[in-house]
Amino acid sequence: MPVSTSTDANVTCPVARSVDLVGDRWSLLIVRDAFDGVRRFSDFQRGLGVARNILSDRLRKLIEAGILELQTASDGTSYQEYVLTTKGESLFPVVVALRQWGERHLFAKGERHSLLIDKRTGKPVAQMLPRSGDGVVVPAGRTEVRKVVGG
Amino acid sequence: MPVSTSTDANVTCPVARSVDLVGDRWSLLIVRDAFDGVRRFSDFQRGLGVARNILSDRLRKLIEAGILELQTASDGTSYQEYVLTTKGESLFPVVVALRQWGERHLFAKGERHSLLIDKRTGKPVAQMLPRSGDGVVVPAGRTEVRKVVGG
Repeated sequence: MPVSTSTDANVTCPVARSVDLVGDRWSLLIVRDAFDGVRRFSDFQRGLGVARNILSDRLRKLIEAGILELQTASDGTSYQEYVLTTKGESLFPVVVALRQWGERHLFAKGERHSLLIDKRTGKPVAQMLPRSGDGVVVPAGRTEVRKVVGG
Repeated sequence: MPVSTSTDANVTCPVARSVDLVGDRWSLLIVRDAFDGVRRFSDFQRGLGVARNILSDRLRKLIEAGILELQTASDGTSYQEYVLTTKGESLFPVVVALRQWGERHLFAKGERHSLLIDKRTGKPVAQMLPRSGDGVVVPAGRTEVRKVVGG
């Protein structure tokens, strides 16, 4: 078990478990590219500028984690393609949250950046914020982590 | 500039810029703990079970990134405390997205895990999903990244 989940609190923390699987730069960028339609090793490598051995390692771990799965090429060639599973697809809010934070805080005024567009409306996806069941935005300061009693 | 943003596409990608700052296990867990009220070096170290030199490095980088700032101890002692800036506070959706994915996919049926509670309602924060401006949920497959033309 990774060190980051070695403490009692982290064993029951969903953030820690998620971070243990996707909490590294390359895994997150691979998942991002998979959402953008990248499927082949050479395309991941070209887009990310990552060493082959590192890319191989991360792809293998993402498959072991059930986030990506291997499929034979959609064009009938002998290529193998890396495709998001349902579990991997449900990482979409994580990628969108990272994107929206970057859009708001990591670009200079007027600096160009890519946009995530809702094809139905043709407009950027709205700012994603935690909300209560009745739709009211929940600021971090109004939340608390309820520690569970083991067992 | 980190390798992960060395390609043209990544230079303009907000996900890549975010991942370059917080895309590692320790940084994400430090930010999580900061949201949970952890402020002191020794408390971060105890909670995370991380080596002092690694924790020092990550805290320094989070301060350089403007995500954490140093404050003198709230209790008047000589301790220094690490506190989220406004920029850091706006990482809340990232932490919540990681938490909710973990809750849904990384625990066995019936396995206990911590819960993020909205103190106003006393209930868990609702599932956070990307939505269009009119509130309709936007599935990943209905989005596209609009690449920007440089300059």
